[in-house]
Amino acid sequence: MSESTLLKDLARRCKAASKVVAQLSSNDKNALLLAMADHLVVAEQSIIEENIKDVQNAQKNGLSDAMIDRLVLDSPRIAKMANALRDIAALADPVGAITETWRRPNGLEVSYRRIPLGVIGMIYESRPNVTSDAAGLCLKAGNAVYLRGGSEAFFSNHAIARILHKVLESFKIPIAAITLVPTTERSAIAEMLAFSDEIDVVIPRGGEGLIRFVTENSHIPVIKHYKGVCHQYVDDNADIDMAINLLIDGKCSRPGVCNALETLLVHNDIASVFLPRAESALTDRGVEIRGCPGTLQYVSHAKAATEEDFYEEFLAPILAVRVVNDLDGAIQHIATYGSDHTEVIVTKDYAHAREFTRRVNSSVVLVNASSRFSDGGELGLGAEIGISTTKLHAYGPMGLESLTTKKFVVQGSGQTRHASNS
Amino acid sequence: MSESTLLKDLARRCKAASKVVAQLSSNDKNALLLAMADHLVVAEQSIIEENIKDVQNAQKNGLSDAMIDRLVLDSPRIAKMANALRDIAALADPVGAITETWRRPNGLEVSYRRIPLGVIGMIYESRPNVTSDAAGLCLKAGNAVYLRGGSEAFFSNHAIARILHKVLESFKIPIAAITLVPTTERSAIAEMLAFSDEIDVVIPRGGEGLIRFVTENSHIPVIKHYKGVCHQYVDDNADIDMAINLLIDGKCSRPGVCNALETLLVHNDIASVFLPRAESALTDRGVEIRGCPGTLQYVSHAKAATEEDFYEEFLAPILAVRVVNDLDGAIQHIATYGSDHTEVIVTKDYAHAREFTRRVNSSVVLVNASSRFSDGGELGLGAEIGISTTKLHAYGPMGLESLTTKKFVVQGSGQTRHASNS
Repeated sequence: MSESTLLKDLARRCKAASKVVAQLSSNDKNALLLAMADHLVVAEQSIIEENIKDVQNAQKNGLSDAMIDRLVLDSPRIAKMANALRDIAALADPVGAITETWRRPNGLEVSYRRIPLGVIGMIYESRPNVTSDAAGLCLKAGNAVYLRGGSEAFFSNHAIARILHKVLESFKIPIAAITLVPTTERSAIAEMLAFSDEIDVVIPRGGEGLIRFVTENSHIPVIKHYKGVCHQYVDDNADIDMAINLLIDGKCSRPGVCNALETLLVHNDIASVFLPRAESALTDRGVEIRGCPGTLQYVSHAKAATEEDFYEEFLAPILAVRVVNDLDGAIQHIATYGSDHTEVIVTKDYAHAREFTRRVNSSVVLVNASSRFSDGGELGLGAEIGISTTKLHAYGPMGLESLTTKKFVVQGSGQTRHASNS
Repeated sequence: MSESTLLKDLARRCKAASKVVAQLSSNDKNALLLAMADHLVVAEQSIIEENIKDVQNAQKNGLSDAMIDRLVLDSPRIAKMANALRDIAALADPVGAITETWRRPNGLEVSYRRIPLGVIGMIYESRPNVTSDAAGLCLKAGNAVYLRGGSEAFFSNHAIARILHKVLESFKIPIAAITLVPTTERSAIAEMLAFSDEIDVVIPRGGEGLIRFVTENSHIPVIKHYKGVCHQYVDDNADIDMAINLLIDGKCSRPGVCNALETLLVHNDIASVFLPRAESALTDRGVEIRGCPGTLQYVSHAKAATEEDFYEEFLAPILAVRVVNDLDGAIQHIATYGSDHTEVIVTKDYAHAREFTRRVNSSVVLVNASSRFSDGGELGLGAEIGISTTKLHAYGPMGLESLTTKKFVVQGSGQTRHASNS
């Protein structure tokens, strides 16, 4: 079989397996996930042995220490993967949920019921734990999963998949329910993106290059996020201590993640008081400030910000700062430079809080809370399969529900649209 | 400006206008829709004059009478278009609706709020009323609309758009909020399908050829339905009078629409009683029966069905009929031959009704009710922008809500993820 025929054939089997997974009871799915968790731990040695091959290849290929660190699997990390599966088992099953019911004048009772999407395509880069995390989330929501992991984690991903397959077999579920593409060529990505009859949605997780490639080549809907240029706006009557706390939490607690702050907007009337305190807190923590001319009036150790700085997702201890004339100026700045990810207002003003949350249509809008709460777990979705900054189907942090859709169920007693014909 | 630059420029203006429309209050949107309705009626003569050009061209080009009938606009039809806008004005505004609210252990209050999608691309064929219907629905849900109508209705569509633009101007809303592409070349479709930064979703309405073309060429998510191969399954203990009524309503009340029945499935144990009565009712109404070998035992005037007949959307007075062994056989048949549109079970059996609605994952599943209720208006959605047989974002009849998405709004009192840093 040529490679191309093989990939299509795998996708067809995955689709067929999705029909089986869709009909599993919550109890069966939970038992499956718990057994997978146990077997990952029992068989950890087989994973670690294969992982060493990936790590050695990475060293040979001169990957950075940070990249290699993402790749490494040891006992504690495998225990963490197992616990993630146990956490997914503990979540409520979205499938079958009746989300709304209403009655029509003719007596028909209409309801929405959640059903699985079918086959989720996941394209990811170096972290091998995504293999079991994604499989667990997709299965719990009644879907099959078609995984294409990164070449760096090839041996680790397959070791993990082999263990998950053994558990599927013991539950008499087709192993194609968790399909791991057996090649890491980029051409394989382009190919799977054409399988619109078999794969219902594609979720790419990785760098901007990967995500652009997937978006531009896909004939399957893609749920993605490019970047998180998150803003915190400090209103003229903000609580200054609170604004400093939220700024430090948002910028410094983990600068490399997508919900970290990248730009600070400050109302002109509070700038002279707030900015010197902000500068001191930020520079204590090694954060470089790139300010607009208004900012530079109040901040002594700052670079002048360029236009590009306000579009930038630094993912580093760098913060762009702009002084704005009013709430409207802040909202306009976010509309121009933002990435629809996460925005914060710090204010004591009731009307300003309402206006900001009404007019800013980013996926997560917070009042007096840290941008770092823009996360599926923190918002209470239970687990996160990703974050979407595109509006179709899912917007913002995505939990299990975003891996489902809703059908209409209509219960009647013989209703017809036209008069009885008998 | 070249045509290609022009289309892109129009899309950019449409995107900019969408930001204005997104912020309109419900009262303003309703006043706008009512004014549009009034102006369509006041200026009906200008529409009828332009419509005559389209009709004359159609006659010159030898279009069928049915096609020409779809094209014609007269006073009553323009009044109907106006009333459709008034009906949309009367619907609840989905924008701003708070669909769920919950509280986190740290005191954060999280809610989902509905927001517009942005720009809706509509690609449609001959019916000019789609111009005002689509514009009305999209505006009500806070979106701008980028319309590409069929060449047959070119003059009519532009006459309608000119009237809608005058009303937008009088409300000081950019006319780009309703953009009608000034060309009807098919190349213009391929081009607009690349504007993924400006258009958020594309909804094609027309024949299977148009829909396939759009799907295969789009870099924007497409919401579509290819065909409706709708089934009615008559269970062994169905009420026979009810089953006949539902069959005649489903097959004969309007055979040319997508929620009409195409295939009848009959339980083996009831076939000898039910099928002769069904035959009599169907042949009285001129319906041709194409039956499986089991059917032909009980039906005297039927053709033998081919395998292809069970995949076919006849849209005509033709019905495929198959006898199945049991409920499972019916469900398997639907899974193999169905189009995920609409399926009916007629039964008195509680467990069978539950099993059918649980296992059949078509977009609309009905118990003891006609397939013809699979319609946005009939299900209580208020108005229908289309029907989706793809599962992402919307599945089944689509009302105003399907033209929106949801953002997270989080209200706090200074919460941070990490310990206070000040």
